[in-house]
Amino acid sequence: MSRFLTPKFSNLTPYVPGEQPQDMQYTKLNTNESPFPPPSEVVEAMREAGASSNLYCDPTCKALCEAIAGIYGVKPENVLPVNGSDEILNFAIMAFCDESHPLAYADITYGCYPVFADFNHVPSHIIPLKDDFTIDYRDYCGLNETIVIANPNAPTGMVMKKSEIEEILRTNPNNVVIIDEAYVAFGAESCIDLIEKYDNLLVAQTFSKSHSLAGARLGFGFANPTLLADINAIKYSTNPYNVNRMAQAAGVAAAKVNDYFLANCRTIEENRAYTAAGLKEMGFTVLPSYANFIFAKTDHMEGGELYQALKQRGVLIRHFNKERISDYLRITIGTKEQMEIFLQTTREILNEKGN
Amino acid sequence: MSRFLTPKFSNLTPYVPGEQPQDMQYTKLNTNESPFPPPSEVVEAMREAGASSNLYCDPTCKALCEAIAGIYGVKPENVLPVNGSDEILNFAIMAFCDESHPLAYADITYGCYPVFADFNHVPSHIIPLKDDFTIDYRDYCGLNETIVIANPNAPTGMVMKKSEIEEILRTNPNNVVIIDEAYVAFGAESCIDLIEKYDNLLVAQTFSKSHSLAGARLGFGFANPTLLADINAIKYSTNPYNVNRMAQAAGVAAAKVNDYFLANCRTIEENRAYTAAGLKEMGFTVLPSYANFIFAKTDHMEGGELYQALKQRGVLIRHFNKERISDYLRITIGTKEQMEIFLQTTREILNEKGN
Repeated sequence: MSRFLTPKFSNLTPYVPGEQPQDMQYTKLNTNESPFPPPSEVVEAMREAGASSNLYCDPTCKALCEAIAGIYGVKPENVLPVNGSDEILNFAIMAFCDESHPLAYADITYGCYPVFADFNHVPSHIIPLKDDFTIDYRDYCGLNETIVIANPNAPTGMVMKKSEIEEILRTNPNNVVIIDEAYVAFGAESCIDLIEKYDNLLVAQTFSKSHSLAGARLGFGFANPTLLADINAIKYSTNPYNVNRMAQAAGVAAAKVNDYFLANCRTIEENRAYTAAGLKEMGFTVLPSYANFIFAKTDHMEGGELYQALKQRGVLIRHFNKERISDYLRITIGTKEQMEIFLQTTREILNEKGN
Repeated sequence: MSRFLTPKFSNLTPYVPGEQPQDMQYTKLNTNESPFPPPSEVVEAMREAGASSNLYCDPTCKALCEAIAGIYGVKPENVLPVNGSDEILNFAIMAFCDESHPLAYADITYGCYPVFADFNHVPSHIIPLKDDFTIDYRDYCGLNETIVIANPNAPTGMVMKKSEIEEILRTNPNNVVIIDEAYVAFGAESCIDLIEKYDNLLVAQTFSKSHSLAGARLGFGFANPTLLADINAIKYSTNPYNVNRMAQAAGVAAAKVNDYFLANCRTIEENRAYTAAGLKEMGFTVLPSYANFIFAKTDHMEGGELYQALKQRGVLIRHFNKERISDYLRITIGTKEQMEIFLQTTREILNEKGN
């Protein structure tokens, strides 16, 4: 911290991204990336956009909004593209919370929510998950607070029923409810079609996982135009050209080959079932996941110890050293081959431990 | 504005980017873009990065910091890449100003400074340029306020002496001085080599203009590591993966062919001299520019009227309907051919007016 920093940020606790080690080639199952590279149409669109990148990108992302609206069955004015969905989550917390309007979210959920709340000096109302890691929707009904819920939740992968989310929306008519659907494409149900009915709903999505574009940084907000106008006011007050030409072009091209990505998501679901079955065979407890990762633990080894042992053998997964979940490991679902390596390596480690 | 917006943002006045009309093909001299597309090496690097964009980008931008440090003669830890230099300007105002630490800047300068100050609820101390549009450095000495100065200034294109900037740095030892060098590559002198000497100096630069990458969004902060750590804390508290894979790769590749871009900057300087001479021949007042644009006015026609007449004939420049400068026009310097079209069209319009 320099001696110039404003006191209001002297206690920042920034987010710590998943490790990206450069020391060796890992079977990388730690940051929920897609194992499938973007198809040639998308890569070619990025090249073409790059070739004209002496010109500014369109700050309104007009073509991208139209393309995204087309695949999600909404109007272009219901779509707000951003530089990764983290950006719209932070913008929304800025816009719809303040010191007297707290943010409610689960104790076990995406680690950026507390970071963004603290950054914006917004009080957090932390609501524990039930013992089985489910969210009881009644905990959020009539709260009179801004709410953010990841559905599926991270890092558990577990989902809420859409009817339950609707009940939360209905009973908090004067507060924005943010449904973070970063992982919705792997078998869960989206709430995008509720944006017409509930003017307090903001759905956040991303092309990072489902559409093989984590490195292109492309997220979206879906809501009614009045709600999006508030977020746009923040965008145009901080970084008007936030989504670059290549990311915009990638999004447009990806929308055109949407079926390719949907098929990839089905493959990930199959590999998830295969991995979960393999882990259960070894005696693991595996939470029911609807995301491109699974959250699992074994009684035979501590979470941190197994994470380390796997890393030493070239398999990278994620361990959260955090209350309630320190026994668990989050394993990104990759290709069948990657999951076989993961399962086989885990088997070896447990066998050597004598289990 | 929705009924959910926090009152603290109810009076936001967002930045209005230069127009990007889609109705016809213009000779586009309105947003200070480079007329030269990025070279094939840079485009190929973006394609390659796009092809692996299923993987996250490096949040630390390690390779990019090294490449940029190499061409500017600093250490990698003196470089902080951002999603366009607007981002670091906003981050710096967030970090180093607050309600009791105002931001000082000129009345005629880059339009984002007041936007970012208002957004962050930072009082603005607006210091008028002299009648000849110069900055009197003595106005900024011993201010005891955070300071941002564009050098060259926008939209005037005029520069301060480095010795004058150094005097401002020396006499404000307890406040950060931000030197915004977005346009420094076109004949002005950079202050980057002062970052070792002054721990209160932050230099902002961008590859938008000099390096043909406006659409890739790639800006940089240069400062001592302690100062940059504050800005990094904000980055990691808002959007850790802010610079995408393609932009990072473009920056690394651009640094490798830096001489190509420097030669382009020399061409722009030649075209600037040619354009200024042509305008002076028509009786224009032309401010002495060290940027990739010129700021000029004629006594024969109002600024807004000439802007409109040029637009109708397919030549787009920028007019600011703002006190002190509403007679002036800002003309981006493009290729020789573009500048000939601009000069010839201007001549025709003035002739038809009977001048």
